[in-house]
Amino acid sequence: MKTLIVYAHPEPKSLNSSLKNLAVSTLETAGHEVRVSDLYAMNWKAVVDAADYGPHASSPLKVALDSGRAFDAGTLTPDVLAEQEKLLWADTIIFQFPLWWYTMPAILKGWVDRVFTYHFAYGVGEHSDTKYGERFGEGTLAGRKALLSVTAGGPESHYAARGINGPIDDLLFPIHHGILYYPGIEVLPPFLLYGTDRMTDEDYPDVAKAWEQRLLTLESTEPIAFRRQNFGDYEIPSLHLKEGLEPAGRTSFGLHVRS
Amino acid sequence: MKTLIVYAHPEPKSLNSSLKNLAVSTLETAGHEVRVSDLYAMNWKAVVDAADYGPHASSPLKVALDSGRAFDAGTLTPDVLAEQEKLLWADTIIFQFPLWWYTMPAILKGWVDRVFTYHFAYGVGEHSDTKYGERFGEGTLAGRKALLSVTAGGPESHYAARGINGPIDDLLFPIHHGILYYPGIEVLPPFLLYGTDRMTDEDYPDVAKAWEQRLLTLESTEPIAFRRQNFGDYEIPSLHLKEGLEPAGRTSFGLHVRS
Repeated sequence: MKTLIVYAHPEPKSLNSSLKNLAVSTLETAGHEVRVSDLYAMNWKAVVDAADYGPHASSPLKVALDSGRAFDAGTLTPDVLAEQEKLLWADTIIFQFPLWWYTMPAILKGWVDRVFTYHFAYGVGEHSDTKYGERFGEGTLAGRKALLSVTAGGPESHYAARGINGPIDDLLFPIHHGILYYPGIEVLPPFLLYGTDRMTDEDYPDVAKAWEQRLLTLESTEPIAFRRQNFGDYEIPSLHLKEGLEPAGRTSFGLHVRS
Repeated sequence: MKTLIVYAHPEPKSLNSSLKNLAVSTLETAGHEVRVSDLYAMNWKAVVDAADYGPHASSPLKVALDSGRAFDAGTLTPDVLAEQEKLLWADTIIFQFPLWWYTMPAILKGWVDRVFTYHFAYGVGEHSDTKYGERFGEGTLAGRKALLSVTAGGPESHYAARGINGPIDDLLFPIHHGILYYPGIEVLPPFLLYGTDRMTDEDYPDVAKAWEQRLLTLESTEPIAFRRQNFGDYEIPSLHLKEGLEPAGRTSFGLHVRS
């Protein structure tokens, strides 16, 4: 495998850092190639602005169109070009981050906002009567797999089906489906650690063992069975799921996973 | 009303900017006080790091605990202190932003990550057999209302109950419930504009009229009926919704809204 790890935590002595380091050593020892984007160490610019598009920034700024023109011309900033190149190099992408306010830290959202430009991650492919662009199962990053490795301070029960936070699968759906599956990446079930606020050094060996096991079985892990957009499950152009396809009892985000 | 508008778009000639400006003028003309946090104009620092906690940054950095100690000591950075002061001043908070990758832009997530510190927005109140901290209906920001005003490039059908993106209410749940309701803010139904990629100047008068109408009726708008955490609907400490309380057919995020 060629694995890119995108890592977002400010503290080199954190649990997230340990999990990132363990992923590097485990995968390299197993003979895989690994590259790391350590967003804090890179001092990653988190905020989209006109400077991202250089001479292709129009006035007024049009984030989507300008990013697409800069992408087409090869004039995106070097930091963004480097991340796009890493994504194209990789066959597997691991995101290592703490859940802050039920989603990713701002620095990682800023990596998505800036790297996932128009014509690279969206605005790809033609629109017709049978196709609404190449996305949700097709796209620039098709053929790749991704996995979220996420730490949550709170206990697992709060993220259960009836838990007050909402089920973790649904909290992660906008990332899994909306960010990763959108440009064509297949999404593996996440590696989740709960209750990390109260975790001690004594808990770490078991955590490490579980993480190593996930890492060494990535190639045989089945991705989440999200429905592909352009292969008959959706009306076009409304992109409503066709009647009768819903698994029993499923609503909302769950409709978009095959049974 | 005392309204704080938190605004996150890089372009002063954007639709988002127009909606922000219209909110200011409409509310001020109606006799209300308005303050604006224009995050791009403020060059808002989006990324949490040790510099946020000054002398209270421990080594290794502990984001939650260190932010709480800096909050308690009054030594948070002036930019964060100013935003906390505005939140305490306001009785109504409007967030104006474009939906980027199904959630808020990184600069606004960074406002949440940095302003919503421990002991201010979380880690508030005691834990006991009948109470799991003051959150989800109680907390520092109780008594306030918030409204998201969000623009989405794609068409409304894609965000419908069967739409491929998932229902907009569920996409916004992690913000509505997880970020705003958590520290005690009541959440008004959002103001949503779809298809803004194809919107023209001719569409704007109708948009402006709808937005003005929402703004002038904020005080009489009923908030989303999220369930309060500590008032009998949840088992403590699992925070599972008690059996039998779910409205017919509801699962997942919908469980946490009263029928």
